[in-house]
Amino acid sequence: MSIIKMIQEHPDVGADFNEALGEAVRHAMYCAAICNSCADACSAEEGDVRACIRLCMDCSDICTATYRVATRRTAGNVAVIEAQLRACITACEQCIEECAKHDNDHCRRCAQMCRECAHDCLKALNGMRQAA
Amino acid sequence: MSIIKMIQEHPDVGADFNEALGEAVRHAMYCAAICNSCADACSAEEGDVRACIRLCMDCSDICTATYRVATRRTAGNVAVIEAQLRACITACEQCIEECAKHDNDHCRRCAQMCRECAHDCLKALNGMRQAA
Amino acid sequence: MSIIKMIQEHPDVGADFNEALGEAVRHAMYCAAICNSCADACSAEEGDVRACIRLCMDCSDICTATYRVATRRTAGNVAVIEAQLRACITACEQCIEECAKHDNDHCRRCAQMCRECAHDCLKALNGMRQAA
Amino acid sequence: MSIIKMIQEHPDVGADFNEALGEAVRHAMYCAAICNSCADACSAEEGDVRACIRLCMDCSDICTATYRVATRRTAGNVAVIEAQLRACITACEQCIEECAKHDNDHCRRCAQMCRECAHDCLKALNGMRQAA
Repeated sequence: MSIIKMIQEHPDVGADFNEALGEAVRHAMYCAAICNSCADACSAEEGDVRACIRLCMDCSDICTATYRVATRRTAGNVAVIEAQLRACITACEQCIEECAKHDNDHCRRCAQMCRECAHDCLKALNGMRQAA
Repeated sequence: MSIIKMIQEHPDVGADFNEALGEAVRHAMYCAAICNSCADACSAEEGDVRACIRLCMDCSDICTATYRVATRRTAGNVAVIEAQLRACITACEQCIEECAKHDNDHCRRCAQMCRECAHDCLKALNGMRQAA
Repeated sequence: MSIIKMIQEHPDVGADFNEALGEAVRHAMYCAAICNSCADACSAEEGDVRACIRLCMDCSDICTATYRVATRRTAGNVAVIEAQLRACITACEQCIEECAKHDNDHCRRCAQMCRECAHDCLKALNGMRQAA
Repeated sequence: MSIIKMIQEHPDVGADFNEALGEAVRHAMYCAAICNSCADACSAEEGDVRACIRLCMDCSDICTATYRVATRRTAGNVAVIEAQLRACITACEQCIEECAKHDNDHCRRCAQMCRECAHDCLKALNGMRQAA
């Protein structure tokens, strides 16, 4: 199942499908799920995991809002998408930095996911500025 | 990136990973995204799309809660996961019925996604009852 | 600002406004916020707070879906609202039981909030069954 | 029930409770609920309501992320709260502009709610910058 193909089937989307934004949606969707899982896995680890729980929950909530808003193609809402992409990049960056401190597989996977998400959100944001 | 591998990296999950529940998480995550997109695409279509917007938004919200709750592996919350899987199956069934009335690609894709999600949630629910 | 008055301003809602369901929406909205805060506060407490973090996060996610779905008045979706109210009652009950174990103000407040939410969701559910 | 009192009961929050941020949380929580209701009510109205549905859904999603993130007091995440407050202000401003075009009670209420939310988010944002 593909969220990118789904967006292309919107009646107002045609040849000018924004590929970079589609990739950002796909990765923010995954990042929301991975960060939600990492917050839960961290809460079951020994040691001081409080910061990791908090930053992962924040990143999950922000990625959820980001992918939902950036998915929509009705009526346009460019300034809001841009502001939300910026918030998403910041949330991912904080989460990468924190997860990098913890030596376990779920934090490594979460940091990698956040890196891909931040990269794609930045690419989408740059693409939107050029188009404006 | 794989949400199923992520769940397996939880410190309390090992050989007894619940595969059916993992599949339900993965499909509910996608279904949340596809239904959110279908509600938006429907709002741009001609004709009476009100029921489709509403049922897709409901299904997206319920799939989001379902995959987030069913992802967690800390401390256990079986009765809640079961009740939420049931709500998710009902939401998907209503969405399938409504999307089947509309002759467009995004409603067909959404109905197909909801079918897979309902199928996997039912399988996960049956698995949990047998285990109990 | 009142979510109950807002629902009454929906073009399809008039004299037959479902008061019990309105109260359930209002309390599930608050309960989503209170449980989200309790999960965060618990993660900063000493001792074994893992179960409380998890059950509060589950309850917050489920209350969010519940109030969003139960708010909508376009096209009707009774079976889905009922299933989601049931999931919400179960989530609140588990959260009450866990929060009652912890001697701090935020867990006491969270348990009280979950009690009110579960009570109103049950009342709304019973009202919907009688109407059917 | 008060989300502001709840935040004050967090173990790391004491005399230095950030009142402006607390107000932003409270209003963003309400604004998430009101915008979700307005999107639904708009979809039941006659006329071209597509832009209003979309902007209200975007604003609801962003307010949800904003209040959840800004509620948390564990470990600190100032840069993320600031970026999310900025996205929330932008989302509210777009929603106000669109709702002001529609002559019905729910759009008037939604615009008023968004004004209060944007005002409080801006006040909280300015407070955080001064503190930094």
